[in-house]
Amino acid sequence: MKAKIIITPKKAVLDPQGKTVQSALDHMGYKGVTGVHVGKYIEIDLVAGTDKAAATKALNDAAHKFLSNPVIEDYRLEIVD
Amino acid sequence: MKAKIIITPKKAVLDPQGKTVQSALDHMGYKGVTGVHVGKYIEIDLVAGTDKAAATKALNDAAHKFLSNPVIEDYRLEIVD
Repeated sequence: MKAKIIITPKKAVLDPQGKTVQSALDHMGYKGVTGVHVGKYIEIDLVAGTDKAAATKALNDAAHKFLSNPVIEDYRLEIVD
Repeated sequence: MKAKIIITPKKAVLDPQGKTVQSALDHMGYKGVTGVHVGKYIEIDLVAGTDKAAATKALNDAAHKFLSNPVIEDYRLEIVD
């Protein structure tokens, strides 16, 4: 069982890393890019048979409290078997 | 149209950030965690109507050449409408 957390900067927040990747892609000759957002990806392996609802609750809590900064970042949590 | 690239350290490579998150989760009281891997998430907005095959090829190239370090990282590319 695995949990996947994707943390991205909020749309209104400056994303210098994204801007850098966007201009790099442009310089590389790839022209169809209108925006790039760079975030963090956290994959958490859970003990088999973990209760999905309890894990979701605990990880939402963790993501909100210390994995992301809710002032400037959004996160998505997904639990897969 | 969007491309999503997830870059993770290869399994054999030390992942100190992952270890830190794992021990933090443990200290926080969440005990069912057997491993944590921290990687990068890049979301690329593409002009509507971009040719999917061409975009896949160009972005695979970009991911291999400068978005990831193929010696120590793996990446997954996904293009969604």
